[in-house]
Amino acid sequence: MQEQYTNMNTIKFFMYHVHDAASLFESTRYGAYDRDSIDLLLDSVKSFSDKELFPYIKEMDEKPSRFHDGRILIHPQFERILRQGTELGLVASFFDEDVGGLQLPNIVYNALYYIMEAANNHATGYMALTCGAANLIVAFGSEELKSTYVPKMIDMTWTGTMCLTEPQAGSSLSDIKTTATPNEDGSYTIKGQKIFISAGDHQFAENIVHLVLARIDGAPAGIKGVSLFVVPQRRLQADGSLVSNHVTTVGEFDKLGQRGYCTSHLAFDDDCRGWLVGEAHKGLSYMFQMMNEARIATGRMGAGIASAAYYASLRYANERPQGRNPDATGQKNAAEEQTLIINHPDVRRMLLHQKAIVEGSLSLIMQASQYADKHLISEGEERERKRFLLELLTPVAKTYPAEKGLQAVSTGLQVLGGYGFCTDFILQQYYRDIRIVSIYEGTTGIQSIDLVGRKIGLKGGAVLQWLGAEMQTTIAAASDHDELRRYADTLLQNLGLVQSVVEAMMPMAMKGEHQRFLADATVFMDLFGTIVIGWQWLKIAVAAKQAIASGDSTYPASFYRSKVHTMKFFYTYEMSRTRGLAEAITDELALTVDMDPEFLD
Amino acid sequence: MQEQYTNMNTIKFFMYHVHDAASLFESTRYGAYDRDSIDLLLDSVKSFSDKELFPYIKEMDEKPSRFHDGRILIHPQFERILRQGTELGLVASFFDEDVGGLQLPNIVYNALYYIMEAANNHATGYMALTCGAANLIVAFGSEELKSTYVPKMIDMTWTGTMCLTEPQAGSSLSDIKTTATPNEDGSYTIKGQKIFISAGDHQFAENIVHLVLARIDGAPAGIKGVSLFVVPQRRLQADGSLVSNHVTTVGEFDKLGQRGYCTSHLAFDDDCRGWLVGEAHKGLSYMFQMMNEARIATGRMGAGIASAAYYASLRYANERPQGRNPDATGQKNAAEEQTLIINHPDVRRMLLHQKAIVEGSLSLIMQASQYADKHLISEGEERERKRFLLELLTPVAKTYPAEKGLQAVSTGLQVLGGYGFCTDFILQQYYRDIRIVSIYEGTTGIQSIDLVGRKIGLKGGAVLQWLGAEMQTTIAAASDHDELRRYADTLLQNLGLVQSVVEAMMPMAMKGEHQRFLADATVFMDLFGTIVIGWQWLKIAVAAKQAIASGDSTYPASFYRSKVHTMKFFYTYEMSRTRGLAEAITDELALTVDMDPEFLD
Repeated sequence: MQEQYTNMNTIKFFMYHVHDAASLFESTRYGAYDRDSIDLLLDSVKSFSDKELFPYIKEMDEKPSRFHDGRILIHPQFERILRQGTELGLVASFFDEDVGGLQLPNIVYNALYYIMEAANNHATGYMALTCGAANLIVAFGSEELKSTYVPKMIDMTWTGTMCLTEPQAGSSLSDIKTTATPNEDGSYTIKGQKIFISAGDHQFAENIVHLVLARIDGAPAGIKGVSLFVVPQRRLQADGSLVSNHVTTVGEFDKLGQRGYCTSHLAFDDDCRGWLVGEAHKGLSYMFQMMNEARIATGRMGAGIASAAYYASLRYANERPQGRNPDATGQKNAAEEQTLIINHPDVRRMLLHQKAIVEGSLSLIMQASQYADKHLISEGEERERKRFLLELLTPVAKTYPAEKGLQAVSTGLQVLGGYGFCTDFILQQYYRDIRIVSIYEGTTGIQSIDLVGRKIGLKGGAVLQWLGAEMQTTIAAASDHDELRRYADTLLQNLGLVQSVVEAMMPMAMKGEHQRFLADATVFMDLFGTIVIGWQWLKIAVAAKQAIASGDSTYPASFYRSKVHTMKFFYTYEMSRTRGLAEAITDELALTVDMDPEFLD
Repeated sequence: MQEQYTNMNTIKFFMYHVHDAASLFESTRYGAYDRDSIDLLLDSVKSFSDKELFPYIKEMDEKPSRFHDGRILIHPQFERILRQGTELGLVASFFDEDVGGLQLPNIVYNALYYIMEAANNHATGYMALTCGAANLIVAFGSEELKSTYVPKMIDMTWTGTMCLTEPQAGSSLSDIKTTATPNEDGSYTIKGQKIFISAGDHQFAENIVHLVLARIDGAPAGIKGVSLFVVPQRRLQADGSLVSNHVTTVGEFDKLGQRGYCTSHLAFDDDCRGWLVGEAHKGLSYMFQMMNEARIATGRMGAGIASAAYYASLRYANERPQGRNPDATGQKNAAEEQTLIINHPDVRRMLLHQKAIVEGSLSLIMQASQYADKHLISEGEERERKRFLLELLTPVAKTYPAEKGLQAVSTGLQVLGGYGFCTDFILQQYYRDIRIVSIYEGTTGIQSIDLVGRKIGLKGGAVLQWLGAEMQTTIAAASDHDELRRYADTLLQNLGLVQSVVEAMMPMAMKGEHQRFLADATVFMDLFGTIVIGWQWLKIAVAAKQAIASGDSTYPASFYRSKVHTMKFFYTYEMSRTRGLAEAITDELALTVDMDPEFLD
């Protein structure tokens, strides 16, 4: 039996029934596609994942990337993965036709990567970072940079990275110290150190193209003096040959998880050359314009890992006999055969918890992708609206699958009991792998400050109202179904709850109490994320009920009913948390601001 | 600077100011001790932990126990640890004087082990299991068994284990299949396999004494046919020499964490002999009478690991500069030096979250220990009352530090950002180590079923009322302090909340709906545990306020104030969760009982 790590029916149901992906095919931009061609693509990536990714996930952990003789060596299977990935167009899938891409809708691109990440979360980074790095060049680079780098990156002859973090700066990008000194030929000499560089070095690309944040000599202090450079590992000579560009791999970080995905320490030495992307001193703003994709990709990875963990624990629960259920007198009959653990309500609770988080997270990723797609195919106000809705949801789409995905994976490990703790089973690996997701691309704290400090106040709060209106549409649709009405009411109450919490917080920002305003941002993220996922679940349930009502037999009846059931589970066990979170945020005391640091001892 | 893993002031303050350990010294049982002698003991175990335990915690993970040539080899430092542990009386500390023990109060014994577990959670199991195994012999074994085994175990010449789990049975002990066939000499021939045997084999004891659950030929099915045997690794000959007893070490489990603490697979082969402890068929009841200590010890270990993680992340937060706080206009000045991350409210929130869980858990362990002590020195009704209160709190004392300790450790890892994910820092190890705590000695699900199915209904619910009365005493004391009154009111409301939830659940048990009655046991555990820790924090705050009011200068003023502050944090961020949990439990739908297993797909 093929082991399961995701459910293709759920992916397709979410795409077409819940998020109306078919409507995209009516646009000029995505008119080359239809459901058949997309399904073919989804199925071929699933088949690639079954054959080339999933069978290697455990081995990549056990034989991790390693530093050897000044280079990093990654698992040999990556050679096949990258080569077949090129054939499948996995980097091309991110780009428009004009630069040689497939011009796929975002929702499809993210579905493809979600499938691959559920199969093997160590593998996709090499491709996804190549997409991100090439995209910076496409968006902001000169024609020369584009023609030099982009085609090689789209076919993965060269792979890409993002070099932001430095040892002394961490998340504080205004403190970047890497320098860029102009040369007469228009290039810059780059000097500095970068750490935590994912995909920073490996043996399966002819060249590695680093997108590097650095300061041009004499640049202003802070974020307004940071520029973006292309710094290849090997530089192109006039004759087309490649020579060393003095990017030294100093070492490899030994990590808790994602051990097959290398994480390098790089040094840019004396004669290392870089080429400016776009204008000087605008590097951070370029980087941030690309950050939406990277953040959604990170959330997607969290959802993918949680999916793999869910199916691994579900399988165990379906195969492991243990214990008996009590009869009407509360007794257990030891003469009976043991029952499968899936028949214990507490095990079902754990599995439903996982399913609710995994599928809720996937739906949110698709929602954000759909906004990105609709933005690209809309005009005027609608176009702006979708872009801002995407902006608002982005930190949530990054954080919810990271934080709750971790809980889901830990729950999955618990389903296996003592075996969950043993390396013979994969749950312990997913528990390690997923732990990075709430740190990558801006930690949960940083995403939460982005949500509270920037996003909820976008356009004077209008964007938050737009999201509320989107939820109202779902609430109205749900209210047509008796079985859903109660949950529609709950979502409506929660909309009011968010409103009241925001109203309580805003005066602090007005009064200049910025520290206090942001102090509970992470708790607000928990509140807001839970409600957003509650919205997604209601939307899923509406689609399921509509399918049942209309006699749509695309999927079995139990499939639709399972979605409604899981929605109810989410509302009962997760949405019930929101009031307590709101209370914590609106408490009159500012316990984390007004305190003596000595209290921590 | 000596790295910190616990705070001795907090331990002593909790023992004497919060849990009134000094009153124990007035009893006949503990009259040999006073505060000075106990402090000396605490300080020498701290010094031992500083020198022999803490410096090896990371190395024991990196050089784990391993199976070699039919034996398990553990880290060489264990030789010193066990020898010095004998000198310090670390097993003797568990026993009464009449069997050669130190007759220490439980609260002191648990404080000693808590210090050691915070220093090195891989080490104490070898001693604690020796205590547990020897205690079964002391409590239920014949005089011959006692004289043969107990003195050797108390001086750790021989160490002990508990052999419960079998591959096909897991948590379902009624399905144990290991057999015991009587021999003419009064011994039994033992045949079977046991897995997950902590401390099951190592090179630093002359002998290993296994306490094994097995079925005597012809025994009734189920738990009423399980007997307890002493099965030594090597058996004593008439001439005093030791020969093999055919206990084969089949292998070692490779684990996510606690890798220095061996976990063996044992086989009892053809000529393996065991000696019955107590009466036939009573093995499980003996085991369960000893289970309280083991469960509290497991919770204590969780609290210890979380403590070590707290201090490791606190240290990082105090040393790591990063970012700046916004000024009154919401701007950050890049020309300023970066601030230490402890000055960011979100980092403080994470640290206070850890501190609230770590210290709340420690206080609960001490509360349970104090009930055990008071039980032993009281008479009549009071004696019974303390024993039942201990019974009620035991599953909570096991589970809260396990489940919330895991959250606290994960929060600690998050404080370090990307470095938290790297093996250079220890947070990632604690994140792995603590994951076993909610599985050991009955998983969280099993503890929760114990709480709901057995404990809350003890003596027709009277024991729950007794606990309520204990909390009322704290509420009354807190109400004397203006600063605490609000929190006393919150605890009172939560007492009512538990009452109403129990009233909603009980009719299900009455009606024979046992599955449903127990379905949300784990959620009830979360609710009940949070309120119990809320009670502990109020008790701590009362003690702190009383010390301030009385001018008690045992500890600095900021120490007392930090306790009150952390109490407020716990009430704001954790106690606010209880209403939502109560809602989930009392929801009219039984989503995990009334469901088609196909819904999990």
